[in-house]
Amino acid sequence: MLSGYFDHAAAAPPLPEAREAMLPFLGDEFGNPASLHRYGNKPREAIDVSRAQVAALINSRPDDIVFTASASESNNLAVKGFALSHLRAGRGQSPAPEAPQSGTVPGHIVVSAIEHVSVLEPARSLKKLGFDVTEVPVDSEGVVHPDKLEAAIKSDTILVSVMHASYEVGTVQNIKELAAVAHKHKVPFHSDGTAAVGRISVDVADLGVDAYTFPAMSVYGPKGAAALYLKRGTRIPSLIEGGFQEKNRRAGTEDVAAIAGFGAAAAVTRAKLPEWSANLSKLAQRIFNELPQKLDHVIFTGSMSSRVPGHVSVVVEFVEGEAMLLFLDDEGIAAASGSSCSAKTLKASHVLLAMGLPHTKAQSSLVLSLGKDSTDADVTHFLDKLPPIVQRLRRMSPLYAKFQKGEDPYAVKPGDECEEHEETGG
Amino acid sequence: MLSGYFDHAAAAPPLPEAREAMLPFLGDEFGNPASLHRYGNKPREAIDVSRAQVAALINSRPDDIVFTASASESNNLAVKGFALSHLRAGRGQSPAPEAPQSGTVPGHIVVSAIEHVSVLEPARSLKKLGFDVTEVPVDSEGVVHPDKLEAAIKSDTILVSVMHASYEVGTVQNIKELAAVAHKHKVPFHSDGTAAVGRISVDVADLGVDAYTFPAMSVYGPKGAAALYLKRGTRIPSLIEGGFQEKNRRAGTEDVAAIAGFGAAAAVTRAKLPEWSANLSKLAQRIFNELPQKLDHVIFTGSMSSRVPGHVSVVVEFVEGEAMLLFLDDEGIAAASGSSCSAKTLKASHVLLAMGLPHTKAQSSLVLSLGKDSTDADVTHFLDKLPPIVQRLRRMSPLYAKFQKGEDPYAVKPGDECEEHEETGG
Repeated sequence: MLSGYFDHAAAAPPLPEAREAMLPFLGDEFGNPASLHRYGNKPREAIDVSRAQVAALINSRPDDIVFTASASESNNLAVKGFALSHLRAGRGQSPAPEAPQSGTVPGHIVVSAIEHVSVLEPARSLKKLGFDVTEVPVDSEGVVHPDKLEAAIKSDTILVSVMHASYEVGTVQNIKELAAVAHKHKVPFHSDGTAAVGRISVDVADLGVDAYTFPAMSVYGPKGAAALYLKRGTRIPSLIEGGFQEKNRRAGTEDVAAIAGFGAAAAVTRAKLPEWSANLSKLAQRIFNELPQKLDHVIFTGSMSSRVPGHVSVVVEFVEGEAMLLFLDDEGIAAASGSSCSAKTLKASHVLLAMGLPHTKAQSSLVLSLGKDSTDADVTHFLDKLPPIVQRLRRMSPLYAKFQKGEDPYAVKPGDECEEHEETGG
Repeated sequence: MLSGYFDHAAAAPPLPEAREAMLPFLGDEFGNPASLHRYGNKPREAIDVSRAQVAALINSRPDDIVFTASASESNNLAVKGFALSHLRAGRGQSPAPEAPQSGTVPGHIVVSAIEHVSVLEPARSLKKLGFDVTEVPVDSEGVVHPDKLEAAIKSDTILVSVMHASYEVGTVQNIKELAAVAHKHKVPFHSDGTAAVGRISVDVADLGVDAYTFPAMSVYGPKGAAALYLKRGTRIPSLIEGGFQEKNRRAGTEDVAAIAGFGAAAAVTRAKLPEWSANLSKLAQRIFNELPQKLDHVIFTGSMSSRVPGHVSVVVEFVEGEAMLLFLDDEGIAAASGSSCSAKTLKASHVLLAMGLPHTKAQSSLVLSLGKDSTDADVTHFLDKLPPIVQRLRRMSPLYAKFQKGEDPYAVKPGDECEEHEETGG
């Protein structure tokens, strides 16, 4: 039924174990974990159990896990939290109220150029509070090099944030080495592990990170739950303030059902990860091997040597990514494109551009994220269906026509802006 | 089974219709609403349907509803959003980088003294960015008077936030009149409707508010979903940044299941509200009438004339609120206390203190929030069980002993601090 579902980076089907763990808390066990009466007991216990399960998956202490509602929230909490912990009191607290209104201590934030927008946008908006931001470049495989990171760190740097793996090009960073560079300069290190957790083994103690983001969806858990690992002793202000939940780190009544589902999914994933990953690697390797035999002018993107299992990203020259998605959908195949048009962003993937791909090639991106239930038959189906789709699209492609005439297809490209969608995007 | 559940303000059992609406999105319809392939269709449609249902409940345009994960998040988004929309670019954007680092435009925020901590704490933390905060006092019934609000507004006030109803003392504010006062001074008005929605009819257009918070739990929906109504044309920066979801107002993959449950619950509540409210009022009135006949030295708190249906708050003199909760729990009765000890807060309810109750009386608070399934039999059970519990506790109470000897029981009171709990609280 899911035979053509290759978009696990966008959403993954929850494990039956996750769903089962959730159901009581949508029914009789609806109580608030903070309640002093018996209706609070089972929900409170469920959160404790889940916290231990989620912690075990990444080798953290349970107390170092902060539950949030999404990886985007975890990323925002980390980036804004580390930055705002450097703010001092402004007007009203100042001993000299008539003095200039300086609410901030200058600070500098380093992020990689290929971070998710939920890291990039908070960093950019912190500029309004006086912070500086440096975006460290990546190489053509999307790798952040330690020397480039070190060069970006300044005396007033207060945070480095580099994602563990890219959901868009699959490249896995050497987080242990990058965190060591940050720590050499006494700068805390956050990593967005959304695309890594559930695909590769993650040990936050070994990585040496101070903060680490991942959602329940990465382990086939439900939407609505995510974690921010915060290393013992790390104190950052809350993004959502006003309650003592999560040891004062995130206010609001806990989404007990989603948290319980997250824990159950983490436990299953921890046990199954080696088996799943081996299968994912094998299936992806088939695509790496066989697709170029069936289709010319395809360029695999990201690192081939340091890559999340089951992830294939490819530029299919002379065709639009979105057009491929729509035709693949007709064949029951669900995929993504790094160049999806999304509201207010009329540009190609910032990740592919940062890797040095020209704008036009970046718009020809196709991203396949396979899952634990993906099979050889699914891959065969995809390898059968994509080539004729691309051939059809290329026949309509002015770029391809130019190319075939021996002209430079990328010299000019009219009409390559996307229309604005109201409700869609990446 | 729920015969003694009187803590609907803390958590309410989800409606069967809400649960049913959620289930598909925890199973086969797991897709990401942003996906361009077919797996995105049903989730996207579900969010549209829910948005219309939630909007209809409060007479808003669907586009004016921003889905969040909790009322606490909605309150944080509103308070920080209105404040931060007044920030200008600091370092890096400044034409004169060597000029003093002033990242903020001075601004002033007015909140009532009885707001939820998820309004109060964000307001207080904004002081670090240079904002001033005034807490408007309330009268002995917990009412915010328009003249007091007007007196608090200054030329640089940028937000007024007053809750619609108090989950702690039940008082309903005249939001229409208070919003008009704010608007007379061209100040936007936010109201936390958590304790009002699902209890009284709410029409945001008639109230004239610019922003309005309420969670799915208020309408017997699931945890993990809430709304912030933002009046058309209201532009505030996001709390969670980095995605175009919710029309760029709240980033992160939508919790489709919780949102679908919220919508279904809102639709049922809209239809049933008159019937439910009539029953709730009748049951609460029985407690108001009969409890004083069975127990002396009880003081009902909050307004009797402007009150949410089914809400009873009472000070039971000479006994600790928490002790009553524990003994009531033994009888299968779940209630709350405004004076719950919670982590890091060793003080009595700020709401009762703001209403002028002394610290010791505020610690004797009992709060009952009845629900749509509460019955006469439940109320009878409560009226039978509370008096002997209180009599037993009073026999052990040094306060009561003093009172009986004709001394002032409130002159000194040793040991009235709570122990710190790690995981509980209000």
